[in-house]
Amino acid sequence: MSKEIPYKIYLEEHEIPKQWYNLRADMKNKPAPLIHPGTREPLTAEQMEPIFCKELVRQELDETTPMIDIPQPIQDFYKMYRPAPLIHATFLEKALDTPAKIYYKFEGNNTSGSHKLNSAIAQAYYAKAQGLKGVTTETGAGQWGTALSMACAFFDLDCLVYMVKVSYEQKPFRREVMRTYGANVTPSPSMDTEVGRKINAEHPGTTGSLGCAISEAVEAATGKEGYRYVLGSVLNQVLLHQSIIGLETHTACKKYDIRPDIIVGCAGGGSNLGGLIAPFMGEKLRGEADVRFIAVEPASCPSFTRGRYVYDFADTGQVCPMAKMYTLGHDFIPSPNHAGGLRYHGMSPVLSQLYADGLLEAKSYEQSAVFEAATLFARTEGTLPAPESSHAIKGAIDEALKCKETGEEKTIVFGLTGTGYFDMVAYQKYNDGAMTDYVPTDEDLAKGFASIPQ
Amino acid sequence: MSKEIPYKIYLEEHEIPKQWYNLRADMKNKPAPLIHPGTREPLTAEQMEPIFCKELVRQELDETTPMIDIPQPIQDFYKMYRPAPLIHATFLEKALDTPAKIYYKFEGNNTSGSHKLNSAIAQAYYAKAQGLKGVTTETGAGQWGTALSMACAFFDLDCLVYMVKVSYEQKPFRREVMRTYGANVTPSPSMDTEVGRKINAEHPGTTGSLGCAISEAVEAATGKEGYRYVLGSVLNQVLLHQSIIGLETHTACKKYDIRPDIIVGCAGGGSNLGGLIAPFMGEKLRGEADVRFIAVEPASCPSFTRGRYVYDFADTGQVCPMAKMYTLGHDFIPSPNHAGGLRYHGMSPVLSQLYADGLLEAKSYEQSAVFEAATLFARTEGTLPAPESSHAIKGAIDEALKCKETGEEKTIVFGLTGTGYFDMVAYQKYNDGAMTDYVPTDEDLAKGFASIPQ
Repeated sequence: MSKEIPYKIYLEEHEIPKQWYNLRADMKNKPAPLIHPGTREPLTAEQMEPIFCKELVRQELDETTPMIDIPQPIQDFYKMYRPAPLIHATFLEKALDTPAKIYYKFEGNNTSGSHKLNSAIAQAYYAKAQGLKGVTTETGAGQWGTALSMACAFFDLDCLVYMVKVSYEQKPFRREVMRTYGANVTPSPSMDTEVGRKINAEHPGTTGSLGCAISEAVEAATGKEGYRYVLGSVLNQVLLHQSIIGLETHTACKKYDIRPDIIVGCAGGGSNLGGLIAPFMGEKLRGEADVRFIAVEPASCPSFTRGRYVYDFADTGQVCPMAKMYTLGHDFIPSPNHAGGLRYHGMSPVLSQLYADGLLEAKSYEQSAVFEAATLFARTEGTLPAPESSHAIKGAIDEALKCKETGEEKTIVFGLTGTGYFDMVAYQKYNDGAMTDYVPTDEDLAKGFASIPQ
Repeated sequence: MSKEIPYKIYLEEHEIPKQWYNLRADMKNKPAPLIHPGTREPLTAEQMEPIFCKELVRQELDETTPMIDIPQPIQDFYKMYRPAPLIHATFLEKALDTPAKIYYKFEGNNTSGSHKLNSAIAQAYYAKAQGLKGVTTETGAGQWGTALSMACAFFDLDCLVYMVKVSYEQKPFRREVMRTYGANVTPSPSMDTEVGRKINAEHPGTTGSLGCAISEAVEAATGKEGYRYVLGSVLNQVLLHQSIIGLETHTACKKYDIRPDIIVGCAGGGSNLGGLIAPFMGEKLRGEADVRFIAVEPASCPSFTRGRYVYDFADTGQVCPMAKMYTLGHDFIPSPNHAGGLRYHGMSPVLSQLYADGLLEAKSYEQSAVFEAATLFARTEGTLPAPESSHAIKGAIDEALKCKETGEEKTIVFGLTGTGYFDMVAYQKYNDGAMTDYVPTDEDLAKGFASIPQ
């Protein structure tokens, strides 16, 4: 059934998946449940529903249903920017002079500039279906906020975004994209919420953090009639929606008889990596196929490679439930020279369990090496990648260079989650030779770990 | 042969055109030749070759060969970002509640963010094939400069970009994209060229213009061993390369039995419009089909709708040949509140001739109406459009609304040339309600016309 493989594999519209895949159904060791910080008991649906939409709570807790139908309005929206191409990186292969075959799944062909839209549209749909007025969320670099504002425009929902203050000021263009889609964007910490006022009082002049913006968004949702909070990563429901990345990749691989030996993805909260590897990991769990999975994270925010697998708060303000995950402590903030995303202190509970079980590898890179890989990729494959995605590029390049040494013709697939068009300040630093690296010392990490509740 | 039309029509890789279409071969009234400003005689190949690459000169002067082979390395590069989808704008149709069918050819799925790459890669290829070291060019908003820097990275050519100073300062991100691809970007007017020094001396503190940057780039090319000048619009060769837009559109229409009644494109120098309409205009000229063609331009830079069809200089510094075209005079500069692109004083000689012959219509819009259309488009069809492209959106919407009045089910195709990710300053103005309109008075235009040589 092997056919000639085009440079870019676009599935047909009717081949876009109509169901998401719930990897947890195939996991023997299920991810640990979210728990209530007071009682330390697993959260019930009733406890979660004031924060999250009802159907999303159901998905969050569902560990047994392997395939979940994608509602038709979400499928309709997916058609606007999906299928995403699986691209054979022949120009990069040539530049590396490697016998390896490199493919990448490109999720950046939409205005949000990333895969985040896959879950944003699902979460907006369920909010609308539940009759809500709007949703609240946080955003750091702005990809998730942009994706959510696009989804809310589509379903005519109010969209309140708490944007980390430093990004709000340094990335006014992301902010304007969100406003163009009708979102209301507030710099965080703000004076609109109790937690925001508290953080402002305790840390005057703070430029904010993702954990703090999450706290504000949750408070805003629970304090408003007809609003719920939505989150772009980490949660099981998000990985479920993002499985569409892996399902399309899997279909394309089957169609052209491409058999991945290694799948590489960047990992911040884990939404892209979890989605990309899902069906392949399912095969591995069911003993049907074997693939090496590699999570790549920044050396400056090394939750997998140097974090602890324990229960921790999802947010700085401690208004969220606790999750068992690889974490650097909810007070951990990467050093100020950190340019790219992937700055969350924790990691998806699903991926955390897989990593703890030895089913997933992880490695970390310093940012100047990541931007070097990004620049090589841009010049050979054409697309200017997001700094986040460039971690996966670097991971894939290193595996391809190993193949060059050994002469092995391995097939490497990586996730190109998005484009870097709103990250040019970081590129400028790199172009000017002014980018620096910083790997946290054990003392730095100890401060973060000290915030983990005992 | 009618099949169900998907939301996005992607041709197969093997359906990407292997030849460009030279519309001039089918024109009874050929476009007027470029002339030497001194002798007023048509330029010969020998006179053009110190400025332009040899093969490009041949293409510039070729009025008779209808189909021209696309060299394999250019075809290989086209595969990186082509085919570009023809998209059925069902969400926009629904929002307008129109019986019209609206399709758009989306050329923005690449890092240059526009169709400019189609000609950049061709021009870089011919420069490389001729054994040159590098090329020089100008850029305003930065789409063309970005496209050329990507193409030069691909063929390992030196790329010198003169960027209009006001854009260089206000659009540092575009500049950084070019630098990431290895281009050397200089704000214009610079002190590197004679013409730059002259303009700086005569207009201290000037923030530059496109016509002035062209003069600098031409001087830089002719003064350097192994360099040539390349231009992203206006020229016949550029329209030839851009015919790939129309050829793909034509193939997609044939494949799904879509019969356009109206084709709409924005018009600055004319490269996108000329490329999009080429095969359809060819059919019209050969009497095989009839379509209405509409060029849409900004009311603040109305070369078609208020310009004169005469010989004028292509650039402010008068170092370029003269072209017969609709022009506002080479000294014309749109008023400072003008936010989008499409600010060139002249128009492609090919399109100018077609317009003079009544084969093409033109209309103009003020910018706040254009941004209103852009916002509606973003919220319904998902993609945030370039301000340039949004002129075509506005034109298409107006035709669709006419259909709503009359009940006609016309088929409208428009060109969505690119994305607006680097144009958020303009969107911010619109979002803040601070965007103003200015239509030049007859007195304003008279000043520009005064610069046209007699």
